[in-house]
Amino acid sequence: MTSAHPVDQFAIPSGLDDVPAAVGGVLDDFFGRVFPHAAAIDPVVGEAATMLREFTMNGGKRIRPTLVYAGWRCGVSERDRLRPGDGDNPAEALRAGAAIELIQACALVHDDIIDRSDTRRGRPTIHRELESTHADAGWSGSPAAFGVAGAILIGDLALSWADDLFHGVGVAEEMPAGPLRRGAARRAGAVWAAMRTEVLGGQILDVVNESRGNESVSAAYRVMEFKTAAYTVARPLELGATLAGGSVELINALRSIGHDLGIAFQLRDDLLGVFGDPEQTGKPSGDDLVAGKRTALIAVGLNRAGAAVGGELRGLIGRELSAEELARAREILVDVGAVADMEQRIDHLGERAQATITALNTDDSVRAELSALGHRLGHRQR
Amino acid sequence: MTSAHPVDQFAIPSGLDDVPAAVGGVLDDFFGRVFPHAAAIDPVVGEAATMLREFTMNGGKRIRPTLVYAGWRCGVSERDRLRPGDGDNPAEALRAGAAIELIQACALVHDDIIDRSDTRRGRPTIHRELESTHADAGWSGSPAAFGVAGAILIGDLALSWADDLFHGVGVAEEMPAGPLRRGAARRAGAVWAAMRTEVLGGQILDVVNESRGNESVSAAYRVMEFKTAAYTVARPLELGATLAGGSVELINALRSIGHDLGIAFQLRDDLLGVFGDPEQTGKPSGDDLVAGKRTALIAVGLNRAGAAVGGELRGLIGRELSAEELARAREILVDVGAVADMEQRIDHLGERAQATITALNTDDSVRAELSALGHRLGHRQR
Repeated sequence: MTSAHPVDQFAIPSGLDDVPAAVGGVLDDFFGRVFPHAAAIDPVVGEAATMLREFTMNGGKRIRPTLVYAGWRCGVSERDRLRPGDGDNPAEALRAGAAIELIQACALVHDDIIDRSDTRRGRPTIHRELESTHADAGWSGSPAAFGVAGAILIGDLALSWADDLFHGVGVAEEMPAGPLRRGAARRAGAVWAAMRTEVLGGQILDVVNESRGNESVSAAYRVMEFKTAAYTVARPLELGATLAGGSVELINALRSIGHDLGIAFQLRDDLLGVFGDPEQTGKPSGDDLVAGKRTALIAVGLNRAGAAVGGELRGLIGRELSAEELARAREILVDVGAVADMEQRIDHLGERAQATITALNTDDSVRAELSALGHRLGHRQR
Repeated sequence: MTSAHPVDQFAIPSGLDDVPAAVGGVLDDFFGRVFPHAAAIDPVVGEAATMLREFTMNGGKRIRPTLVYAGWRCGVSERDRLRPGDGDNPAEALRAGAAIELIQACALVHDDIIDRSDTRRGRPTIHRELESTHADAGWSGSPAAFGVAGAILIGDLALSWADDLFHGVGVAEEMPAGPLRRGAARRAGAVWAAMRTEVLGGQILDVVNESRGNESVSAAYRVMEFKTAAYTVARPLELGATLAGGSVELINALRSIGHDLGIAFQLRDDLLGVFGDPEQTGKPSGDDLVAGKRTALIAVGLNRAGAAVGGELRGLIGRELSAEELARAREILVDVGAVADMEQRIDHLGERAQATITALNTDDSVRAELSALGHRLGHRQR
């Protein structure tokens, strides 16, 4: 008998609120396994691994792993009704969720290069930190170019390691592939593959739309569909349910819930990006306006405003704003009805998702947790 | 019975010279599978997938897949002596080799950003091509930043797809995980994981060494060890043998051969980077000098030169050179004995590898092919 993957030794979350801590444990264990190999290449590579570790461990709300676990619980609950006690392994769901956190680390590190962001979660971004290291040490060449080079490679490391963690392969020879049934593993692999193509595809589309100055509401929705709804909500739910061998009916219901909650989540994000309290969000006031993001909120605002007000709003996008200018941009978005439109859409999506959750063939406790989680995604303050 | 993976339908290479064409077929099939998903996200994402496809299909000499196949043949030959006709599947080796070509696509696309290279294999690099698209269309923002953003994401797509191809998962639900024995799959996964960490680690070290102006011979060797010897030769050989269930003795022998041939390969590359004929290499004369690369050749040259000549050589590194200056740099490297040193090292490594090949417990035909391939790696002209 092969020894169990050490992830099995972690505390199994009794509810969704316990998932972030459990996922932190899986990530910590994973970094402990890969670090010796990285450091053996050279201490410099060990330092890069440590930067990535700190970035990932200091990760946000662990929304995606929580959704993987929620989907997994739905799948287990459904199967228990058919064949009680079929021996599912929650460690697989935690590991898949932790692997998405590494995808997310790559996405954030590379996005911060693309968006030329200076800070992330109140700390310097990876490329800026490396830039400072270079400048402080007085090395040769351009500090900025060094920062970009290092951050590209650290992001690549995160993307590679995400796959190693998901597939259960690693430098440790004794790490078994995991107790997944072969069919579930193959189907989960397909969901994993689709999810990665979708987040990168959504990101490519976002970059192109921004360069083209595409102001259409449909373009903003298309980016949301893949970059957020699929990647952040629908695919994680589906991945969890697939790992637990969920039925096609369950997976279709979770996809529908995931789509609705994912769009609602992003629309809330867009509102917080203009109206959010910096104390709560950790981002500067009106961040999305300054960055010139092509969100649905802004697309709807431009669409609803007449030529004069639309021109005025356009002049308040993509540059530094005074407090008065930010207040004026907010006022326009409220006056033309864009904010009310967003709130209505969020409510409608949330209601539709809740109806699908109510109809789910699952335990009452799972249904209640998913329902509460869904409400949080659409109505959070940060 | 599940249907066989379509890769099984491809022509099975009868010798190592047939591997590049067979791997091209596997890649073509893979891109045919992922393209519809990419294009369904948005036509823009389909265009990105097409750029990556053309870049990968126009790929170089397919050295790494050829080595995977060579290692696989060693493994099969060894096993046939123990248990004739144990039903190994050459498609697995081709697929693993093709997957490395996608890793390589990511490495090249990201390296070209880091090195700010304008051309690759006689065509504009991906970031330059995207920069031109942006400039020609007159989009908003910086064309250069758009080029970098797009190339980061296309490289990420390549890295993700490499894993999907290796692990046999994809958007096509009917794609089975492959007929690998579970143990071999797990061990091959560990080799795959180590190889990716090593190439990225070697690359990180290279970037740091260059910034630090590290002129030591040992630093140059450490980068070669991981960025080239392990990634390009040793791990591909090991991966192939592992897929065929090769013994520990075989794998240790292949690692030793791979190390020696890999270092010889890189030392030849370094010589070609200064003395190569642009007609043959496809790169400008003295490319490595102009780029300021910290190769072993240059490190040994600086090390052997006295203070005056060393200073002169240092002044001929990392900037555009006239024909006279290039000739002088070459003259110094010859005069101080750095070129002879490199040739001796290549000969020594080649001889040691050939001795290990001669002692391999494998078929004469496999031994002869591996021997010829080893000679080519150390003595190629391009």
